[in-house]
Amino acid sequence: MEAGDLLFYFFIIFTSAKILGEICVRLKVPPLIGEILAGVLLGNYVLGIIDHSNHVLMSFAEIGVIFLMFHVGLEIRVKDLFSVGRTAVLVGILGVLFPLLMGFLCMVLVGYQIVESLFIATAILATSVGISVKVLQDLGLIKHKVAYIVLGAAVLDDILALIVLALVKGLARGVFNIVEFSLLVCESIAFVGFLTWWGPRIAARTRRWIERLNIPEGPFVLSVVLCLGLAELADLIGLAAIIGSFMAGIVIDELAGVYDLENKVKYVNEFLLPFFFVMMGAHLDPRAFLTPRLLFLTLLVTGIAVLSKMFGSTLACLKENWRIRIQTGVCMIPRGEVGIIVGLIGISLQSITQEVYTVVLSMSLLTTLITPPLIILSFKKKKKKPLLSLEHKG
Amino acid sequence: MEAGDLLFYFFIIFTSAKILGEICVRLKVPPLIGEILAGVLLGNYVLGIIDHSNHVLMSFAEIGVIFLMFHVGLEIRVKDLFSVGRTAVLVGILGVLFPLLMGFLCMVLVGYQIVESLFIATAILATSVGISVKVLQDLGLIKHKVAYIVLGAAVLDDILALIVLALVKGLARGVFNIVEFSLLVCESIAFVGFLTWWGPRIAARTRRWIERLNIPEGPFVLSVVLCLGLAELADLIGLAAIIGSFMAGIVIDELAGVYDLENKVKYVNEFLLPFFFVMMGAHLDPRAFLTPRLLFLTLLVTGIAVLSKMFGSTLACLKENWRIRIQTGVCMIPRGEVGIIVGLIGISLQSITQEVYTVVLSMSLLTTLITPPLIILSFKKKKKKPLLSLEHKG
Repeated sequence: MEAGDLLFYFFIIFTSAKILGEICVRLKVPPLIGEILAGVLLGNYVLGIIDHSNHVLMSFAEIGVIFLMFHVGLEIRVKDLFSVGRTAVLVGILGVLFPLLMGFLCMVLVGYQIVESLFIATAILATSVGISVKVLQDLGLIKHKVAYIVLGAAVLDDILALIVLALVKGLARGVFNIVEFSLLVCESIAFVGFLTWWGPRIAARTRRWIERLNIPEGPFVLSVVLCLGLAELADLIGLAAIIGSFMAGIVIDELAGVYDLENKVKYVNEFLLPFFFVMMGAHLDPRAFLTPRLLFLTLLVTGIAVLSKMFGSTLACLKENWRIRIQTGVCMIPRGEVGIIVGLIGISLQSITQEVYTVVLSMSLLTTLITPPLIILSFKKKKKKPLLSLEHKG
Repeated sequence: MEAGDLLFYFFIIFTSAKILGEICVRLKVPPLIGEILAGVLLGNYVLGIIDHSNHVLMSFAEIGVIFLMFHVGLEIRVKDLFSVGRTAVLVGILGVLFPLLMGFLCMVLVGYQIVESLFIATAILATSVGISVKVLQDLGLIKHKVAYIVLGAAVLDDILALIVLALVKGLARGVFNIVEFSLLVCESIAFVGFLTWWGPRIAARTRRWIERLNIPEGPFVLSVVLCLGLAELADLIGLAAIIGSFMAGIVIDELAGVYDLENKVKYVNEFLLPFFFVMMGAHLDPRAFLTPRLLFLTLLVTGIAVLSKMFGSTLACLKENWRIRIQTGVCMIPRGEVGIIVGLIGISLQSITQEVYTVVLSMSLLTTLITPPLIILSFKKKKKKPLLSLEHKG
């Protein structure tokens, strides 16, 4: 890709994302819907201006969502995360179990083979928390109880997804290495456990050391190093990289206030994040909605994905009032990377067909697109005062 | 490139740049020298960890320097730029003429052919202002008279380089399209002229319109759109993309203060810029210093590049005192992209050899590496007070 090309893509992506974002805000829809729609428009299947397999653009997208989760980690407080710990754990577990069971049973009932049904069930199991979190952030609700429950659940959700994926992969291949599997489970639990428990304590003690840094913007630089480092470590273990960057935010939570890291990371985010949403939209394949057979399958899988997750999540937080239960359920709806990864593995092992893969991809996008309006609806107050107050001026 | 790979490279590049940067600051050397050295270490020819032809990493580097120049444009005031206009124009013209003439004559005298000598002379002609500007910024001198002269001169420098390059290309090919050439000259002068003169006036009138934007961080978003748009436009004309982003900064200069854009763009920069310096360092080919013949050529071309530019620049600002003349001359030393582009064109037209290309590349890097210490030296006050005060804490 030439220098000029790169700039052209950057300009087009950023500008159209923001124009459609602005239109969405005026229509009282969250701006990220506009950014995703910009991606759909620009993508391979509609205007064909950007290629969703372009490495450079996908890399910017990836770094964008890593910084989003880092920013979210910086914003929330570890103590508050612990205070909803039990509920979050339950939401995480039931929110994975229900899609897995319901997905498997439904697909078998519709006539799919055992292995293929298992892959589809695995693909709809893990929540991709970025979208919900961004909507909550835009609504100024990132410190709401629901946000904490959802974030805690999403971390566990990802660990469980990793475990189920390892099991399903083993099953499909016919080989299963128990040592490797145990290692995977231990590593991921140790990673998250150590960081949540010890991370903030260790970070708090490094302050004297940070003060001695001489490079410009030392604390910001260190925070980025930690963000990239933990994202890479999470990826090495097999977890989502965003779990690592989220953990990085959690770990330096206390220092973030001292050095105003939230506001500094925010603008890196503002620049990079549109690439994530646009590239997400660019993956939408409208063919999934054009043939009746595929449309039926897409709607079926999406329906199961939505209902099973909502059912599991709302059941998990029985102790809360009905509003919080619904809100939590809605925030857990979006699916993303895990579904796509499962789909790709399924194809490479010839356990699923290209058709099923397209369906999984469309399910990810549909759940992503319906969630933001549902979140807004679920948080709407009974008073006439509109909730969507996105007009923070620079 | 896989997700994990990408994060690994990001982590390694960012972290090693900052570690070497920190060491440099402690040794009273500008941190960007450390970042460039990190690139040399990680690059193809030393440790071989990063590949300097990697598209993704080069794209981040490119966007990094585009944001650097945007940030610089936001920092400086148009009025002050006009106040040094005459000097800047002279520095721009003489700073191009001297390297061209001296370079050509010296290479012919050493025994090179006319066309090859012309290519080498063209390769050493244009200043790459990013390094000097970053050093001045780190030293808190971005609003110093010298910074304004250098920035003004660099814009003109780039236009002149574009013109000379078109002429030399025509000469080498044996065809020369006068219409195309005139169009090129007019376009580039119109681009810079229009933006400097009318840009700020138009931008100042858009404020009411900006206030009506509803997306979060509207002014920041708009500024990024302008930065990417003008960078792309400059590139389309044939100018360096960084001239476009610099112009974008100039244009919204007045609004920048209102919306605190400087501070917002700063952190995008802090994240992206290390990629630029590291990738620059990764291009260093130590072979240029290992064979006596190449070493001689490299030192010769670098010597001519440094002396001719300093001579031309200091001669151009006769009206100023000797300190400012030396400081301006030193800041104009670094060469960069233009040299490399000329080299690549020369190779593709078979007008220069691979050997000469390696020499040009090494010249770019050498001039880049010697400039920061020279800038510090030239700005050193006679009092014992150390000038290098980079310890801005986040």
